[in-house]
Amino acid sequence: MSFLDHIRACNKRDLSRFRPFHVDGQLAGYVRHDMAEAIRPYADVFQVNEQRVVLAPHLGAFDQRTAAVDRVLRRVKDMGIMSPWRDEPYAVTASPGGPALFIIERAAVPLFGIRAYGVHLSGYVRKKSGIFMWIGRRSRTKHTYPGMLDNVVAGGLAHGLTARQCLIKECEEEAGIRAAWAEKAMAVGAITYTGEMPEGLRRDVLYCYDLELPESFQPVCQDGEFEAFTLMPTEEVAAIVRDTARFKFNCNLVVIDFLVRHGFLGPEDADYVAIVQGLRQ
Amino acid sequence: MSFLDHIRACNKRDLSRFRPFHVDGQLAGYVRHDMAEAIRPYADVFQVNEQRVVLAPHLGAFDQRTAAVDRVLRRVKDMGIMSPWRDEPYAVTASPGGPALFIIERAAVPLFGIRAYGVHLSGYVRKKSGIFMWIGRRSRTKHTYPGMLDNVVAGGLAHGLTARQCLIKECEEEAGIRAAWAEKAMAVGAITYTGEMPEGLRRDVLYCYDLELPESFQPVCQDGEFEAFTLMPTEEVAAIVRDTARFKFNCNLVVIDFLVRHGFLGPEDADYVAIVQGLRQ
Repeated sequence: MSFLDHIRACNKRDLSRFRPFHVDGQLAGYVRHDMAEAIRPYADVFQVNEQRVVLAPHLGAFDQRTAAVDRVLRRVKDMGIMSPWRDEPYAVTASPGGPALFIIERAAVPLFGIRAYGVHLSGYVRKKSGIFMWIGRRSRTKHTYPGMLDNVVAGGLAHGLTARQCLIKECEEEAGIRAAWAEKAMAVGAITYTGEMPEGLRRDVLYCYDLELPESFQPVCQDGEFEAFTLMPTEEVAAIVRDTARFKFNCNLVVIDFLVRHGFLGPEDADYVAIVQGLRQ
Repeated sequence: MSFLDHIRACNKRDLSRFRPFHVDGQLAGYVRHDMAEAIRPYADVFQVNEQRVVLAPHLGAFDQRTAAVDRVLRRVKDMGIMSPWRDEPYAVTASPGGPALFIIERAAVPLFGIRAYGVHLSGYVRKKSGIFMWIGRRSRTKHTYPGMLDNVVAGGLAHGLTARQCLIKECEEEAGIRAAWAEKAMAVGAITYTGEMPEGLRRDVLYCYDLELPESFQPVCQDGEFEAFTLMPTEEVAAIVRDTARFKFNCNLVVIDFLVRHGFLGPEDADYVAIVQGLRQ
């Protein structure tokens, strides 16, 4: 494996398995064919043909769209296509960071190829011997990516929260980082990718934050998402990312971005330009 | 103006004004039509037609190519197409950071649309009141972009130097930063763009470095490239970039990248994703 392999894995897709999804004349996503066929009977909400899926134009208002789509999704949710309902409202946007067109249940997001936003925190400690990173191990009972390594705090951005509000909430819940400390986290960039996963098409924007933590700090998971946290030398984290698939797929990219920004990876690496460009596709 | 305007300006081009340039079966650049016509008579070196320019295949070795191209360029250098000869050898690469195919005089690089590499340093001071950036003003007698604002150290990467060697050399020459200090500079990423400028097509990779400087440090230009240096609050630098065209075109992008990495720009900005993606096109 290599750093670039992880970036490529996040951007591997075959769009012929999806149909463009249009809302109000804008491209809002890509519906997987099985999902398109499942919602085809609900023609008052979705106009489905072999080429595309269009949200019915009579659904002109935000609330109308949200309610109509929700009604259909509840009808198809047990057909074996969608992952379990999560009851988390996600905003549908036509451009990254653009205005919300309507709200959709998180479990449907990848099946509609809706752009999704998340926050990821690199929590690090500066010691005399170098920079150490806090790494979490996901609970073995978690539905998604059980037991895999993860950034110390990460979460999907639900509708109605800003990225920073979401980060502060997740800091408390996932790692016991109090708000007064979490507020010091610094926005340091964003990672973007479009890749096909078992759950559908992931078109993700990961807002990245760095937070320097004191040596005395020990993360404590409050919500059962993580089963352990380890403080590791950054060089060791880099080797795990480079040589293994132990991290959850997109957390590899957050670590690679950290390595780029903190001088652990430099122009001496033959893949450097491909890596820095690859993190924002 | 806006941050995004500067990024768009660096990526504005009309490739119909250029012909693809192939070396050994690889796309190595884009030759501007006037330059293509100027080198057309030298058919033993360049195979020129309306569609493309090919380096003669019998020139199979690095040194052969370098010598043959140099011979032609010296014949056409005073036809009013090329900017003044600089006697700086630049590597021609087919992929970013890839192996050098041959060496070409710097003044010809944009006319052949060769990918060029540079190093740019953000020199900053951490005060109690915040982060301050050292900003240079280019000499009014400089051939390119006289009198414009610039990063504290910047330079093109000549063949035979690594990015870090080039940075350390330029630190000494341009700002009087001694090697012992310059070595602490941290690689923090790269900016890429492809844009049409008066001198040709710029396909640039800017390797970015950060260097924290002590409050007592005062840059001193050794080589006449700069006429002054000013230490400014980052917020003030950000406003100059956002609202004016006082910085040399590509230095705007280096400042914007600094703003992104140091939390001065965040997901709250509606253009955030477009900006972070735009810095690496």
